[in-house]
This record gives sequence, C-alpha cells and structure tokens, in this order.
Amino acid sequence: MSDTYRRIALARRPQGAAVLEDFSLETDPMPTPQDGEVLVAVEWMSLDPYMRGRMDDAKSYAEPVEIGGTMTAQGVGRVIASKAEGFAEGDRVTGMTGWAEHAVLKAGEIRKLDEGTPPSAVLGVLGMPGFTGWRGLHEYGRPKKGETLVVGAATGPVGSMVGQLAKSMGLRTVAVAGGAEKCRIATETFGFDAAIDHRAHGDAKSLRAALSEAAPDGVDIYWENVGGNLLEAVLPLMNTHGRIPLCGAVAWYSGEVGEANLLPMAWRSILTKRLSVDGFIIFDHWDHYPAFLKDVGPRVGQGEIAYLEDVAEGLENAPEAFLNMLKGGNTGKQVVKI
Amino acid sequence: MSDTYRRIALARRPQGAAVLEDFSLETDPMPTPQDGEVLVAVEWMSLDPYMRGRMDDAKSYAEPVEIGGTMTAQGVGRVIASKAEGFAEGDRVTGMTGWAEHAVLKAGEIRKLDEGTPPSAVLGVLGMPGFTGWRGLHEYGRPKKGETLVVGAATGPVGSMVGQLAKSMGLRTVAVAGGAEKCRIATETFGFDAAIDHRAHGDAKSLRAALSEAAPDGVDIYWENVGGNLLEAVLPLMNTHGRIPLCGAVAWYSGEVGEANLLPMAWRSILTKRLSVDGFIIFDHWDHYPAFLKDVGPRVGQGEIAYLEDVAEGLENAPEAFLNMLKGGNTGKQVVKI
Repeated sequence: MSDTYRRIALARRPQGAAVLEDFSLETDPMPTPQDGEVLVAVEWMSLDPYMRGRMDDAKSYAEPVEIGGTMTAQGVGRVIASKAEGFAEGDRVTGMTGWAEHAVLKAGEIRKLDEGTPPSAVLGVLGMPGFTGWRGLHEYGRPKKGETLVVGAATGPVGSMVGQLAKSMGLRTVAVAGGAEKCRIATETFGFDAAIDHRAHGDAKSLRAALSEAAPDGVDIYWENVGGNLLEAVLPLMNTHGRIPLCGAVAWYSGEVGEANLLPMAWRSILTKRLSVDGFIIFDHWDHYPAFLKDVGPRVGQGEIAYLEDVAEGLENAPEAFLNMLKGGNTGKQVVKI
Repeated sequence: MSDTYRRIALARRPQGAAVLEDFSLETDPMPTPQDGEVLVAVEWMSLDPYMRGRMDDAKSYAEPVEIGGTMTAQGVGRVIASKAEGFAEGDRVTGMTGWAEHAVLKAGEIRKLDEGTPPSAVLGVLGMPGFTGWRGLHEYGRPKKGETLVVGAATGPVGSMVGQLAKSMGLRTVAVAGGAEKCRIATETFGFDAAIDHRAHGDAKSLRAALSEAAPDGVDIYWENVGGNLLEAVLPLMNTHGRIPLCGAVAWYSGEVGEANLLPMAWRSILTKRLSVDGFIIFDHWDHYPAFLKDVGPRVGQGEIAYLEDVAEGLENAPEAFLNMLKGGNTGKQVVKI
C-alpha cells in the first residue's frame, strides 16, 4: 500500500462560475482506520450538480465544504483495511468517499454492494440521481396517464429516469436537452415523444414556441432541475393544477440570473393556474430507497430502463469533468474512474 | 320601482395602477327577470383585490370584464320580482350581482340567506374571504401546534381569519399590516402575538430584521396574499418543510415589479428549505363551503372569531373605495352599502 493518497480540495470559493483554479490536487499521508472504520480504495466517484452549492459559503441544506477540505462525492470502492465488524478486505462498498483515491469511512456510513451490480450504476441509475427521479416524480409530480411532462437535462441521470418512468405510465414526455445529438439520444435511447434542443433557441420566447408545439395539450408536470430560460418558457404553458417538483436550478448556479424580475410572473402563474411547487432534497427520502431498488432494479436489469454514463479517467481530471458537466457538456451520468 | 338602475362599468383597461377614469357610472333601463330568474335590489356589495385582475385583458382563471361591462362583485339584496320557483319577493339572497343597484340572476346562481345573519358578514367573515382563509390554511398551510405563521394584510378579511384560526390551534401568529393603527387592531382585536408595520420599513432587508425578531424560531407558514417586499423579506426566514399557500400578490397588481430578478432567490429558498408553494383559487373549493359554515359560523356568532368592516356609502363611491383598498387604505373587509 502506498503511504500517500491524492484528493481534490476546494482551493477557494468560486466568484460566479466555478473555474479550475478553485480546486487543488493534494497529496496527503494515507489515513489509518480506527475501531469501527474501514479504509476504502475508491474505484468510481460521482459528479453531480449539487456539489456546486457546497462550494459556496451560503447556508444551505448541507454545510459548505471548507477551504482546503476534500470535495464531497459518493464513491464506490473496495475495502483494503477493516477495523469494522461485518466488513472484510475485498468487500465492495459505497459511501461518501469524497473526491479522493482513498477514504476512511465509518461502518454505519457505508453500504456493501453485490458483485453482480455494475459498480458505477450505483452512482447513477440505481443511486442518488435515479432515486431522485423516481421519488420526486411519484411524490410531487403525481403523474396521471394522458398527461404531459417536460423535463430539462433530459439525457442526464435524473431526467432520463423521470422521462422513462413517466412514459411507462402513459404520459406524453417532452425532453429538453443541449444539442442535436442529445435530442437524438432522448428520443432513441430514452423513448421521449419529442425533444427540443435549447441551444437552437436564443431566448425564452423562442423556446416557448417550440415547447408549445411539442406539448399541444399544455404541460401538467414540469420537472425542474434547470431554472433560467426553460422555467420562463414553460410557466405560461402549465395547465391548471400542474405540478412542479423542484430539485435543482443549474442554469442559475453560476450566479448569472438575468435582468428582468421574473418572480411576479412566476407567482402569477402559480396562483392563476393553481400550481404546486415542491422543493425537495433526496437526502430526506432515504427511507424509500429500498422500495426504489425493488421497483427499478429489475427494470434496469431487464433493459426496460436505459441509462448512459460519461466516464472521466483519473482523479486529477475530476475538476475539468465537473465544470464541463455544469455547462451541460456531459450526455449521461458523469462518473470518474479512479 | 324605478325604470332605470345604475351600475359601474369598466371604461377602459388600466395602464399599470388602476385609476378612477378606468370606471364609468352608467344608467340603464331596469332589467326584467325571465323564467327561472329573479330581480334583486342590491343592499350590500363586496370589494375584493381579485377584481383588479378581471380588469386586465390577460388570460387568467376567469374571463376578464369586457369594456363597458359591469364590474364583477358578490352582493346581498332583496328579491323584488321573482319568476323563479322557491324565491319570493322580500327574500334576502346573495349572488354575483356585480357593481350595480339591481341585478337579474338565475335561481341556480343565488343562495337564500337567514334573516338572522348580518347581511354584510356574508360578504366577508362568512363569505368568500373568510372561506379562503379557512380552506387555504387547513388544506395548504397544514398548521401544527407550536409553529409560526406570518400573514400580510393581517387586518383584512382573509388575513384576520387565518391569524385567528392559527392562533386557536396553538401557533405563534405574526401580523404584517400598514400603519400603527392596523398593528394595534391586529394584536388587540385579532389576537396576533406580534404585529409589524411594513410602512416603517423601507426595504425588504429592514422588514426581514423586524420579522426575524417577531418570529425567533423562523417561519413555518407564510400566508401569501401580498408578494413584493414581504415575500422577499420572509423567504430567507422560512423553516425547512415550510408551506406557502398563495392566494394573491396585491403588491404586484399595479405592474410595479422591482428591478432585481428575485426568482432565482425564491427558487433557491424553495429548493434548499424544501418548501411547498400552492397556488389556489377559492372558486375551486365551494364543495367545502358547508363545512366552513358549520365550523366557523357558530364561532363568529359567539364572538370567538372577530371581524371588521369598512363601509363605503353609495354605488357611486365604489371605485374610490376599491382603489383605496388596493393601496391598503382599508382596515377590515371593504363593503359598499348601496
């Protein structure tokens, strides 16, 4: 075993959009597990938009990453030293390893994985993003056959789960994604009824016209993970008693928020169309995770629910892959192979 | 019976804030009821903020008032000619009479009133505004003992109902109202635990500081009927899993919406605090009106639930009273004695 390991730290807080200089690659002495802990050699780690929020100092649902602290991430790896009952060397586990080649984790904070499950799937379609889509759609979207759903970042791990689940329940599904290739994947791989390339539309009005054509009966569920132009475009198209599950707003994470005050328009839409907007964070919902695995696990195994991964190679390339993802440069679930 | 009657028509659509010139007083021939209709001599009519929305051409939940058409209002009056089974001359009824001295209404669109009920109360504490507060608080506010509720326009007929119901359920209730006199009434007449004069605070930040002091444990329910500065002030104070029943946004009805784009901040609050925002319109909920009367009627009769009315005299003074109400010039429920 090496006597050092590498990790990616937060070098400074971003000013607006995050940049490479906000991260630093650190080499530290290899940590030693204490009683009840294991040392994990990380094989795969997850990159997710929520991590951008942890880089800011603002109080949020979770504590920000400290300057110099390791960036947060779920990872999958093998136990290489165990002082915890129930875990042995060689066990494959998942837990919050951070952006790091190795991590010491408490037994209560990790979960053992079957050798049969593809390890990276645990970070995407069968992990937090897939679970986010499943739980949020059922709990807050309340889909009904014949309705219309619109979802942004539609080839991503949350959007593609939402779209496929809704389609299987008899909804019309409309994807919004960046670029012709993602739109092709949305319809061909994920079965969306229509796909709109938001890059082909310079403003909310133009995007709205395209959405209006793709959703001729209006929008009953707008799955909100984007914000920005897409939200502005879709609000006037919402049907009475529509639902907006809100799990992200990546368009605004850079701090660029536009000039017009859109809150009155949004409030007016919510009022006159009697919409329900529910913010949710999947970390509140883990008690439903077993039900998710029971429902979705076999459907993934049988190929009924498809998933896509973008793989970055090497811890040192995680920051670039992360920044690329925030700009919509990924197609599917972004993971890093360590 | 006179052979003419007077009504207030919409003379033109408002540009921004409504003004007196947007209305006209018309004298028309007295209408004659046909089979199934009654002619009502209006005694009282209601003025409510929602009427401002009907003056605009924008598609909303209800059709706009036509230019030259009579302004919409609920009224109370006596039947003076009946061609409808079940209604006799002298019956006191309520229905959508409009801003008018007389109205012909269909039997199915009116409701007979007990002589025991104060007629104007039917327009306020026991009518649409009181019912709005009762239904919205229970259905969307989901109040729990020990929580904190904030409500704007707190001496008005909706706000005072919400505050009194919440207080009776063991919540801490914080009123926001315009002026020291309304604040005194909020605490003395309606039993609010604290009252904040929004006129004493020039911006959202100052208002937030006062709210923060009045709601030291944060805000669990923000009853939204105001929008504007109050919304901006309260959002960062919301507790996790807070609820925002949204039934109006009178601060924005004039078209003055401020310059900063507050939607990203609002969306971020909804997400990170996992808030539920539910737009609702009481016209969807009439099937619960009997339950409301059963619960609240006796409590009003026993003086447990207080109410206040501002009375304008004469149809011709309705536009001025209405404009004054939109600016917060009323204290309680604004009615017009015809």
